[in-house]
Parts: sequence; structure tokens; C-alpha cells
Amino acid sequence: MSTPWSHRYARRAKAATSSAIRELLKLTQRPEVISFAGGLPAAELFPIERFQEACRRVLAEHGPAALQYGATEGYTPLREWIAAQMARYGIVAAVDNVLITSGSQQALDLIGKLLINAGDRLLVEAPSYLGALQAFNTYGAEYVSVPTDHDGLRTDLLEEALRSGPKFMYILPNFQNPSGVTLSRERRVALVGLADKYGIPLIEDDPYGQLRFEGEHLPSLLVLDRDNQLRDDGYRLGNVIYLSTFSKTLAPGLRLGWIVAPPEVIAKLVQLKQGSDLHTSSFAQAVAYEVVQEGFLDQHVRTIRQIYRERRDVMLAALEEFFPASVSWTRPSGGLFLWVTLPAGMDAPRLLEAALKENVAFVPGGSFFAEPEKGLRHLRLNFSYCQPEQIREGIRRLGVALRRQMTGPVPVPTAA
Amino acid sequence: MSTPWSHRYARRAKAATSSAIRELLKLTQRPEVISFAGGLPAAELFPIERFQEACRRVLAEHGPAALQYGATEGYTPLREWIAAQMARYGIVAAVDNVLITSGSQQALDLIGKLLINAGDRLLVEAPSYLGALQAFNTYGAEYVSVPTDHDGLRTDLLEEALRSGPKFMYILPNFQNPSGVTLSRERRVALVGLADKYGIPLIEDDPYGQLRFEGEHLPSLLVLDRDNQLRDDGYRLGNVIYLSTFSKTLAPGLRLGWIVAPPEVIAKLVQLKQGSDLHTSSFAQAVAYEVVQEGFLDQHVRTIRQIYRERRDVMLAALEEFFPASVSWTRPSGGLFLWVTLPAGMDAPRLLEAALKENVAFVPGGSFFAEPEKGLRHLRLNFSYCQPEQIREGIRRLGVALRRQMTGPVPVPTAA
Repeated sequence: MSTPWSHRYARRAKAATSSAIRELLKLTQRPEVISFAGGLPAAELFPIERFQEACRRVLAEHGPAALQYGATEGYTPLREWIAAQMARYGIVAAVDNVLITSGSQQALDLIGKLLINAGDRLLVEAPSYLGALQAFNTYGAEYVSVPTDHDGLRTDLLEEALRSGPKFMYILPNFQNPSGVTLSRERRVALVGLADKYGIPLIEDDPYGQLRFEGEHLPSLLVLDRDNQLRDDGYRLGNVIYLSTFSKTLAPGLRLGWIVAPPEVIAKLVQLKQGSDLHTSSFAQAVAYEVVQEGFLDQHVRTIRQIYRERRDVMLAALEEFFPASVSWTRPSGGLFLWVTLPAGMDAPRLLEAALKENVAFVPGGSFFAEPEKGLRHLRLNFSYCQPEQIREGIRRLGVALRRQMTGPVPVPTAA
Repeated sequence: MSTPWSHRYARRAKAATSSAIRELLKLTQRPEVISFAGGLPAAELFPIERFQEACRRVLAEHGPAALQYGATEGYTPLREWIAAQMARYGIVAAVDNVLITSGSQQALDLIGKLLINAGDRLLVEAPSYLGALQAFNTYGAEYVSVPTDHDGLRTDLLEEALRSGPKFMYILPNFQNPSGVTLSRERRVALVGLADKYGIPLIEDDPYGQLRFEGEHLPSLLVLDRDNQLRDDGYRLGNVIYLSTFSKTLAPGLRLGWIVAPPEVIAKLVQLKQGSDLHTSSFAQAVAYEVVQEGFLDQHVRTIRQIYRERRDVMLAALEEFFPASVSWTRPSGGLFLWVTLPAGMDAPRLLEAALKENVAFVPGGSFFAEPEKGLRHLRLNFSYCQPEQIREGIRRLGVALRRQMTGPVPVPTAA
């Protein structure tokens, strides 16, 4: 008796859809396409020789341990290194505040497993990171979205949204994916204050914080929250869980991220991670630990910042040169992305069709909103992956597609 | 306002408990303890030099791709290699039948995400693999258990359990964890026939199938199921999803497992995996692919089989020598574990306390049952990890603890 498998799927699986970005990446792998669609780091910057030496040493010096099962919490020396690294940004963390995850995406999945009952409402920025929405959707999340502007989340609109009692807030304060904007210092203070006032936890997702091109580092929500909690030993009772990753500073192919949280939260996340994948690759962790030693990561991040800043500048200059005046965009001071807003009457999915004919790709904004229709006039552009000359040529092509859409006949709607 | 985090946890997280094995592993890391508790492969057999050469080649020949984001489905050459490997066991699989997972544990988690609604009843062997119970518990599974004997699942008791309409059956046919028993050919045919008759899917978990020490390979449930489905092209409409892993044949520290399933099931699992961890480490996959080339894995598995067979024989001989006649145990023809049954009146958790005083450890049987009280008189012993002389000494110590428990005063019950 053959029942179709689709009849057997759980409700969450029936509701799951493929990430628009992942599907797009497949379409844009033709070599003639200049793709601003992915969120990929510049592969030519990966420190291959340093990895060669790290692999050699890890295998020679403790190969059996690096290839064996390991602790769910992660490789202790790497957790200690992360805790020390966090301290440089004022984040007070000990080894038992740190859990290594299989990329930051697993951190989002574990947060969802830990906190979300089906029907729980989460407060997110509009727009927000689509991978987080995808992870949280699996657990039946619903959303209340708060608008953002060039200083990040509109904290003046936050209190009303908080009164609806969201389970937690999910915030990307630095060079946000997708918009590239950074939450201002004043708004950080306001946000943490309101989180404290209403007792609503904050999930602070910070994959790009180290990739600041200019201006001063702004304090993490975790740090501001601790300052709010001084009566106790602060952090242990805090409202903030902090996430970061090696994917943007070292190499995403390792799949190494981490969570900083109070020890009792880490202990519960460890239980959930045991059932999810037992632990993150011992080998990848040991190799990463070798690579980052002796200040190497700091030095490497300086190189990345310089290259990405150049690429951002090339993209901004090309946008000025090739885009109509009615189109606007953000000017990120770090990270990998900027965010374009089209004039009224245009829409990004239709522009993508025209753009692909010009062999250039981007991600339409809809995927980054809990209510996709809000993203209709937006596009996300990545500036980290392509070479400068490709960036200029890609933006030129996108300008051609844009003008064609603006001046051409109204296109016949395509079938759904 | 500081709400304790524990008040915020989702129901599934509140219900989660730490795996007894993982916690035990921590207790038994003192060097003087001989531990039969873990499920660890023999670390001294890991082919370190082969890994050295593989890392060198991967980084030199395609380092940027190996360190970059990759496809959720997995590294195509590795998927193709797995599909070809499966064919040697009669399993007809193409590349789109194969999904790479972050260890077999993630395969279990994804199966749970795909198929289990809270309250769904699953049919499991009694005993069954505790990591699977832990993964499925997260999704609110309930269980109907069917007893096993020395030929595996009691298929003569299966039909009544199937009438209760379980969502799927979860079966380990080869050298089962924890019992070490293998499902006989006749029972495999009966099991697949009943799965077909009642339209109940089978999850076939096969981490140990290649580690057969003697006797002939028995056909996979997937192969028998295909033979039942000949009217169609068989497998596409089949009832079986098959799981395996590199953890027992190569190295668990890589965290590489795989799922073989109909393409539409793989496509849905890919959507769920995107939200879980985007993809499994590109670097680990590329390195594993290099390592297994040119028949290396076959040759390596022959070495593992020989060493583990010797260790099993040492353990069986020591059990004969040191254990009282009232204790019985299984005689596995492969894998990593055997299963001990204590006489009436004894219990394994109390024996563990006595054993730890003798510096020897094992896992009490309760963790392997949906109803833990059924495991009271059982223990799982691992024979793959320790050296032969340690195995003999460990079983001697366990014999001492056993006799002490049998002849000593009735111990005062410990506080819960």
C-alpha cells in the first residue's frame, strides 16, 4: 500500500518552503551572471595556507581527539578563546556562557527550539534576516514587525508592539542583513531599556559586528543590558542572548557559530543540541582554533574590512552613476549588504526577471519580511563577493534593466 | 524586570532532559576508569596520515570552494560516491536520493521535523537507540514498543501494534544499538510486508551494517521494500527511508551522515535542513571524499572489522570467565555493542554505582526504552573503544561489582 509521502508530513513540514535565496543561488550559477544575490564572503581572501598549516598541526598533534566524538558544548579551547575575544567588546563571558553551534543558522534553530511554542508572536525588524524567519517558522512562530530607518529599528514605535506581549525580540544591530543599517547608540539604550521594562528577551544576532569600515564600534545590546542589571552579577539574569559566527571573518564552509547566554540557558541549549546533531565537527573546531591563534584573525579581519570597504565604495559610486534619481539606497558603514528602494509603481520580482536577462541577479525584498508584500519595492545587494570591476559592470546592467522597466510598456503579469 | 529564563522555555524544551550517556561520559573521563559506556570508535585506528594528505589536496586543489558556503543537499561528488557505494548492497540510489547530514543524529532530527506532530505514536524496538528517542521526543512523539529477541524485532507481535496506526516504524536491523542483535532475513521480509500491508513507513537506521564480523550480509529493508513495489519503479513509491553515517567507518568528529529517500522526500528534508544549519561543513565533506577514494574506505573497514571482532571475542571470553552463570548476554556478529541481562532482583543503576567504585563504567538499560523501567535489568557494553587487555580487566572489575551486589546486604535505596 503506497501512501504518498506528502500525506505523512507533519504540519511544520507542510508549511515549510524553500528559501528564495537558496533557490536563486542555483539559478545564478551560470558564469555569465554577475550575482549580488548571495551572502557569500570573498572566497579569494580565505587564508588557504594558514588552513594548510592548521590542518597539519591538528592532525599531527592531536589527530585522534580531533576526529573522535566531542562534547556537545564545543571544543573547550575554542570556547575559551571566544570568551576572551568577547571581552574585548566589553562582553563579560566565561567558558560556560559559550556554546559552539553548527553555524549561526543552527543557533537560530536552537533558539526556536528553546523558546517558541506554535502561535507565539516574535518581534522582528522590518526587514529582517530571512534565515531567522525560516528557522522560527518551523516552530510555528507568528510575528509583529517594527519598521526600521537609516538608524535601524524605530524604537519610538516599539512600546506599542511590546504591549502585545511578544515572546522575544530578534534584532541585528550591526550592518543588518538585509538593509545594511546600524542601530544608533541612543536607540540601543532605548531598546534595552524597553526590553527590561517589559521583561521581553532580546536575541542579538551579530554576524557582521567586526566588519566595520569606519566610525566607532557601538556597544552590544548584551553590554548595555548588563549595565541595566547591576544589582545582581548582571549578565546571569540578563534579557539578552548573543549570537555570532566565524562565517564572515574566517570561512563559512567550516559551519562554526556560537551563542553567548546565561549558563542555565546554555545548559538547556546543550540538551536540545544533543538531539539535533550531538555536537559540531570536532575537526572543524580544532582547525579553526589553530587558525585564529597569535592574533591571526585580527590581522585577517583588517584585510577583509579593507577589501569590503573598497567594494562598497565601488558599488555606491556605480549606483550614483547608473541608477535613476528616483531610486534610493542605504550607505552601510560595514558588513556585506546594501538595500535599494524602488520608486512607487515598480516591483522587485519583475525587476529580477528583467535583470536576469541582463545577466545580473539580486534578492527581491519580500523574503526579508514577515509580510512579504512589504518588500515589494526593495532589493538586497551583496557587495562582498564580486570583484570591483564586476560590481561596476553588474550595477551598470542593473541600471539598464531598471530604466527598461521604468520606460517600457507595462509588462503582462506572469502566471503565478 | 528579570523573568527567569526557565519560565520562557517552550514546552518541548521544558520536557527535554540530558542524555544519560552524554552525562555519563563526563563522569567516566577519569583515566583510571575503564569505560564501556560510550559508543566511541577506536581512536587509534583513525587514518591520520590519510587525513593529512586529503586536507593538503583539498586545500591546494579547491580550497576556496571547500571553505565557502555549499549546497544544502551536500557536496555532489560525495553524494555520487555514496549512491554508488549503496549500489553494492543492492540499494538503487541516484544522487537526488541522497542528502548529506551533520551526522546521523541530524538525520534523526530532520526525520522528526518532517514527520512527527506532537502526540504522534511511533513504533520502536524495545530496546532502541536512545539518540533517536531523544530526537523524536523533541517533536512530542509517543511510542508503541515491540519486544526484540536474539533475532531482532518480534515480527510475530508486530501486527497488533501496527493496528494502533503508528506514524512510522524506527528500526535498526544490523547489530542494533544497544542490543547488538541482528534482524533475521525471515523477519525482514515479514516486517517489510507488514509495512506495505498497513502503509506504515519504515525508518531504517544502519550505522553499523558494514561492520559485520562473520556470516553473510542480509538485505536492507530498502532493498526488500523495492522488491515489493515492482509495479512502479519501486523505490520512488517505497515505504522506507534509509540512514547511515561515516562515524563508525571513518571518523565521528567529521559529523557526516546521510539519508537515502525518494527525491520528493529529499527535497522536503532540504527545506528543513536549510532552517536547521544551512548545510553540512563543505570542508569536512570535501576531506571525507578525498579520504575514501581508490578503495581506501573498503580496506580501512576491513581493518576495523578485524580489530572489533578481536575485541568482541575478548569481551565474550571475559564474560564467560568473570560473570556469574545467572547473568546472560548477546553475542553480536558485528557492530560495537553487546547487551547484558541481570537476574531477577538486580538492577543496573545500582550496579553502576558499585561498578564506578571498581573504576569501570557502562550504560544502564533504562535510557534505551520508551518505558525506562523495562531496562532495569539490562546494561549496554561497548567493545570497540578499549584495548583487549582493558576489556578483560574491565569485565573482571564488573564481575567483582556484580558478585558484591548479589551477595552483599540489600543496599539502602538512594535518594531520587
